[in-house]
Amino acid sequence: MRAVSLTRGQLEVADLPTPRPGAGQLLVEVRRCGICGSDLHCRLHADQLADTLELCGYPRYLRSEQSVVLGHEIFGEVVDQGPWSTTSIKPGTPVVSVPLVRRGRQVDGVGLSAHAPGGYAEYVVVQEALTLPVPNGLPADVAALTEPMAVAWHAVNRGEVSRKDVAVVLGCGPVGLAVVSVLKARGVGTVTAVDYSAGRRSLARKCGADVVIDPAVESPWEGALDGHGFMNTMPDEYNAGIDAIEGLTRLPVPWWTAWRALEAVGATRPHRPVVFECVGVPGMIDGILAAAPLHSRVVVVGVCMGPDSFRPALAVNKELDLRFVVGYTPLEFRNTLHALADGTLNASHLVTGRVGLAGVAAAFTTLADPGVHAKILVDPSIEADGIQVR
Amino acid sequence: MRAVSLTRGQLEVADLPTPRPGAGQLLVEVRRCGICGSDLHCRLHADQLADTLELCGYPRYLRSEQSVVLGHEIFGEVVDQGPWSTTSIKPGTPVVSVPLVRRGRQVDGVGLSAHAPGGYAEYVVVQEALTLPVPNGLPADVAALTEPMAVAWHAVNRGEVSRKDVAVVLGCGPVGLAVVSVLKARGVGTVTAVDYSAGRRSLARKCGADVVIDPAVESPWEGALDGHGFMNTMPDEYNAGIDAIEGLTRLPVPWWTAWRALEAVGATRPHRPVVFECVGVPGMIDGILAAAPLHSRVVVVGVCMGPDSFRPALAVNKELDLRFVVGYTPLEFRNTLHALADGTLNASHLVTGRVGLAGVAAAFTTLADPGVHAKILVDPSIEADGIQVR
Repeated sequence: MRAVSLTRGQLEVADLPTPRPGAGQLLVEVRRCGICGSDLHCRLHADQLADTLELCGYPRYLRSEQSVVLGHEIFGEVVDQGPWSTTSIKPGTPVVSVPLVRRGRQVDGVGLSAHAPGGYAEYVVVQEALTLPVPNGLPADVAALTEPMAVAWHAVNRGEVSRKDVAVVLGCGPVGLAVVSVLKARGVGTVTAVDYSAGRRSLARKCGADVVIDPAVESPWEGALDGHGFMNTMPDEYNAGIDAIEGLTRLPVPWWTAWRALEAVGATRPHRPVVFECVGVPGMIDGILAAAPLHSRVVVVGVCMGPDSFRPALAVNKELDLRFVVGYTPLEFRNTLHALADGTLNASHLVTGRVGLAGVAAAFTTLADPGVHAKILVDPSIEADGIQVR
Repeated sequence: MRAVSLTRGQLEVADLPTPRPGAGQLLVEVRRCGICGSDLHCRLHADQLADTLELCGYPRYLRSEQSVVLGHEIFGEVVDQGPWSTTSIKPGTPVVSVPLVRRGRQVDGVGLSAHAPGGYAEYVVVQEALTLPVPNGLPADVAALTEPMAVAWHAVNRGEVSRKDVAVVLGCGPVGLAVVSVLKARGVGTVTAVDYSAGRRSLARKCGADVVIDPAVESPWEGALDGHGFMNTMPDEYNAGIDAIEGLTRLPVPWWTAWRALEAVGATRPHRPVVFECVGVPGMIDGILAAAPLHSRVVVVGVCMGPDSFRPALAVNKELDLRFVVGYTPLEFRNTLHALADGTLNASHLVTGRVGLAGVAAAFTTLADPGVHAKILVDPSIEADGIQVR
C-alpha cells in the first residue's frame, strides 16, 4: 500500500506492506486522517517526546531513527477483520477508532509507535473494541475530527465548566478552536478566545467564541472579564469575607451556621474563570499564574516539551488549580462522535485544507505558520501533491 | 507593652505602645502565639514575599526595612473592645481569630504587615467579626494551634480526599504534621508520611500516620502504594480500558451504555493517591511529577519562593492535578477550632517547645534545624529567654 513514512524528520511516500489485523482487530481503508500538532512536533523532536513517555511507563513511542507511519485522527471504512472476530462491525461500515491497538498485553498508540503504523496510509489496523460505527451521513471531513474534538471534550470535562462560567481559551490553533467549539456546544455562556493571529481569531469567532482578543492590543484578563465579579486581589477577597460575616451577625443564628448555609448553596465560593491553556510554549503557564484572577482553574491542554519555569508562590497565593489533560475516555470519544453526528457540536470550521499522501510534507511545512491553516486532513484518494484549500 | 520587633532580619524585645482597637475590633491579651514557618522565612526574605503578594494585589505586606511585630497564630483573652462595639464576646473571653484586621476598606494580615502588629507581644488587635470564643477548657497550647490546623483542614478539603483514598504527605514539618493529623481526624484510611528526619517521622507516627518513610532509604511511591491498584503506567491504563470494553461487549446493551453506568458509579475512574506537598523547596514539584502514579492529585501546601523548574509534559501525560492552597475560609477556621475542642482532631503532638518574648530569637535559630522542633509557642508570661522543651 502507499503510505507516508517518517524517518529522521523526513516525510516520504513509500510502498509498504498492507498491515494485517490480529485477533480483535479490524483493517480499515483510510478516507481521512487529520494532521495533529503532536505529529508536527514529533517530526522534529520525536526523541524528546519518547523520553517523556518512557518516564510515564510507555517505552515504545516512536524514535527519530525509526521509520514510522504517523496519523491517529482516522476516519475510514472497514475492509477486513482479524481471526476469530465476533464484531458486529461489518466490512463496509464507516468507522472512527480510539487510536490504540493491542497484541497480547502490549498496547501501542496508532501512528505514535513503530509497532502500530498510523493513518497517513491507504490502510490502517485498529482495535475492534475501541472502534465505533459513524452514524449514517456524517461527512468524512467531520467524522475525521472525532479524535481531536474528543481531546477538547475531555479537557472541558476536566475543567468542570458549567454553563454560567466564563471560559478563557488561550491559543486558537486546532486544539484551542476545538475547545471553543466544545464549550459552546455545552452551553457555556461566555467564551473568550485569545490569539495573536487575525486568521485564527476569525476562526474562533466562527467556532462560536463570544469575545475574541488580540493579546498584543488588549489584555485577556481585563476587558474580557469585566463585570463578571471575579476576585482579582487578596484585599477584595478579605473584604468580601468580612462584609459577609458582619452581615450574618445580624441574624438570630451564629454566623457560622448562616455561613454554612451560604456555602452549601455556593454563595460564598468566589466566582472564577476556567482558563484553557492551548499554546504549549515555555512561559505560558507562568504568565497565566501572574495575570489570572484569584481562584482561576487552569486546564493545561497545550504540551510544553522540556523544562519550563514558573513561580509556585503566585499559584499558592492566588489558590490556582493546574489541571493537566491528555486524551479522553472511551465514553468521551463516543459522546463526541454523537455530538458531531447530531449537530450539537459544530466543528466544521476547523478544517482549512486537504492533501493527498504526496502533499503531507508540504502540509507540515504550511502548518508551521500559524496564520494560514488550522486543521489539514489527509485524503489518500487525492493524487496531487498540493494543498486543497477549503 | 513588651513585644518582639523584627527589623532588617533582627528580632529584639522592645517596649511599644499598646495597640488600640478600632470600630469592630477587639484588644486581646496574648496567651500563646505560634511561630510559623512563614515567619522564619520572612525574617530573611521579607522583600521577596512582599513582591509576590504585591503581584496578588496586596501591596502592604511587611518589608525588611520596616519594624514589624510578627505572629498570626494567636490565642488570648479579650480585654477591651473598640468604640460602638456590639459584640457578644465580652472581656475575659478566651478567643482565637482569623488574623485579618480592617480599617475602612483596608484589610491587613495581622503579624504580616507593618499596619497590623502581630501576636509576639503582650497585646494584639483582632477583628471582632473574625474572632471566635474558645470552648471552655481547651488548653492554651491546643487553642493556639487553631490557625495552622485550619491551613491543613483547608488543604484536605481542597484535595477532596475521601476516607478510602490513600494520602501521601511529603514533608513532616509543622504543616505536614498538621495535614497528617487532619487526614486521620477525617477518617482517611491510609496516610503515608515522608521525611528525611527520624525525629519528624516519629512525630508523624504520633499524629497518626499509618506508614512512615525515610526517602533516603525507600521510595514513597513503591512500597507505600503497593496493593492499592494505582495506574502506574500508560499501558496499564490502556489495557484496563480495553479489558473493560471487551468485557462489556458481552452484555446485551451497547458497550457505551454499560460504560456510562460504570462511570456513574465511579468504577471506570482510576484510583489515585492524593499527594500533599508540604516541603516548599525548588525541585519538589518536578520530583512529584516524575515519580507519582498516573492521575495523582497533588495539593501544594509548601510555598516555594522564587522561580522553580518543572516538566509540564510529564504532568500532561500523567494527567496530574496541581492544586495550590493558601489559608482557609472562616467556616473552615471555625470547624477546625471545634474539632480541636471536641477531641476529634488531636494536634497536641505538634507542640515541642515554649518560649517567652525574650526567647523568640533563639526559637527562630533552633527551628532552622528541622530535626529538633516542630511547633514552638510564644507565651508572653514566660520571663526566661531559653526554650522550654515540652
